Amino acid sequence: MKLIRYGNPGQEKPGVIIDDKKYALPGFSGDYDEDFFGGDGLQKLSEYIASHKNELEELPEDVRLGAPVFKPSKIVCIGLNFADHAKETNAPIPAEPIIFFKATTALTGPNDNVTIPRNSVKTDWEVELAFVIGKKASYVDLENALDHVAGYCLHNDYSEREFQIERGGQWDKGKGCDTFAPVGPFIATADELGDVNNLHMWLTVNGKTMQNGSTSTMIFDVPFLVHYISQFMTLLPGDIVSTGTPPGVGLGMKPEPVYLKAGDVVELGIEGLGTSKQVLKAWSPPAS
Amino acid sequence: MKLIRYGNPGQEKPGVIIDDKKYALPGFSGDYDEDFFGGDGLQKLSEYIASHKNELEELPEDVRLGAPVFKPSKIVCIGLNFADHAKETNAPIPAEPIIFFKATTALTGPNDNVTIPRNSVKTDWEVELAFVIGKKASYVDLENALDHVAGYCLHNDYSEREFQIERGGQWDKGKGCDTFAPVGPFIATADELGDVNNLHMWLTVNGKTMQNGSTSTMIFDVPFLVHYISQFMTLLPGDIVSTGTPPGVGLGMKPEPVYLKAGDVVELGIEGLGTSKQVLKAWSPPAS
Repeated sequence: MKLIRYGNPGQEKPGVIIDDKKYALPGFSGDYDEDFFGGDGLQKLSEYIASHKNELEELPEDVRLGAPVFKPSKIVCIGLNFADHAKETNAPIPAEPIIFFKATTALTGPNDNVTIPRNSVKTDWEVELAFVIGKKASYVDLENALDHVAGYCLHNDYSEREFQIERGGQWDKGKGCDTFAPVGPFIATADELGDVNNLHMWLTVNGKTMQNGSTSTMIFDVPFLVHYISQFMTLLPGDIVSTGTPPGVGLGMKPEPVYLKAGDVVELGIEGLGTSKQVLKAWSPPAS
Repeated sequence: MKLIRYGNPGQEKPGVIIDDKKYALPGFSGDYDEDFFGGDGLQKLSEYIASHKNELEELPEDVRLGAPVFKPSKIVCIGLNFADHAKETNAPIPAEPIIFFKATTALTGPNDNVTIPRNSVKTDWEVELAFVIGKKASYVDLENALDHVAGYCLHNDYSEREFQIERGGQWDKGKGCDTFAPVGPFIATADELGDVNNLHMWLTVNGKTMQNGSTSTMIFDVPFLVHYISQFMTLLPGDIVSTGTPPGVGLGMKPEPVYLKAGDVVELGIEGLGTSKQVLKAWSPPAS
């Protein structure tokens, strides 16, 4: 199945994509949250779709999409998980995964505008494969790790490199700015997507290809990451884990880094997980 | 007011402390969460208490307490915010606040057992003043910063120093283990606590004083932290911010570091914010 959340920001409702068409689920209660993923939500949704196949209400093709998970308890990210990306940022290849968090307040819809933070001069992009936890994960063995994954989605792990690297020691400062986590368009359930170890992934800025890689060059794969992270914290159903980015980020450009400016258009995609598109906007004070 | 949450883990209900006695709020709906702090929850609670003063149901003195906030969207921590603590850990005094996150899954009651994580050899303590956000905070001016603080509470920012420092680059790995964030016993509302700039804070291990400091030696104060963090992310009502620890952590002990072992008893307190007590337990596999 492919799970979407559609509607105005803060008022999204759960829906699905079937044969490239988006559908509402008018009689389906709940949202794609901790209870849904941790309980029998996917099973019930599957049954609902099977029994309502001819009654589903099609949505406009251009309906606004929100992030396909509602209020995850955390967004865990893995740093430098592609050997070539570590190299382009002059970082050593990690001996074990680097873990950091994105503030969940950074979550936004896949095609929403992204705000360049106030005083930012180094806003950068990172196409990433993310996965959604489907079962509470604490000290999970490697062989059982995939039982804890509900599905996969596309994520652009926006990063402010000055905030991240030059402003006092921990990356979190440059990773969790508002709108810095466009996720989606949809969650593909694990059975829908199949093998995740050889998916093409790409990102363009104003139509120019900047990232063009594959999940096949990841250093630490999805089962290992579930196992590894769960040694340090409990992952709850609905939590999002983002698995790192291939080469081609702005920070690594030669002869010098390239960063985003207002008006830039970023498009990205992962094979089987759709595409997303963000227009960059300058920060402006909210209307009072 | 002093806000508590009492009852079995996962089933806590909101209550209050009045004149050192704990009371249930049987007719008061809701919990101490984002909606409560972001709406008029404190005002309604104050009115409820005033109009039910003679009907409040007293709780047993030894009732179990949970963390006094329900499901904060994030726990933001400030690193090395006391000059003497920076010195004892051989770190330079920060030019601006260091920000990191604790996983919200680390939250636990103030007097619950703390689990030494599997394979941990360097579990450490940190008595900290934490505050709870009362109003959404994004790009907040310094002069308005305190309007965004609902109240204050005691926090023991447990840290696994090997996970934090020696396992791959970002502190988050050693800060968010389960039970590593005992918060409470209560939230004192801002008006209840008064001046927070000269509060005695202390921590003992097995009765021996390890930390004995004051909020007066903080480098960056509460208004500055609200202002500063809000330049990088939006703080939501109910979010917890922990402001750093004074000298005396295990990592800084001479002639060599001292870490916690199963059976150790940690007690701590901050003037006006009560005390808490945790017994350290070894990790053991959950009953299957």
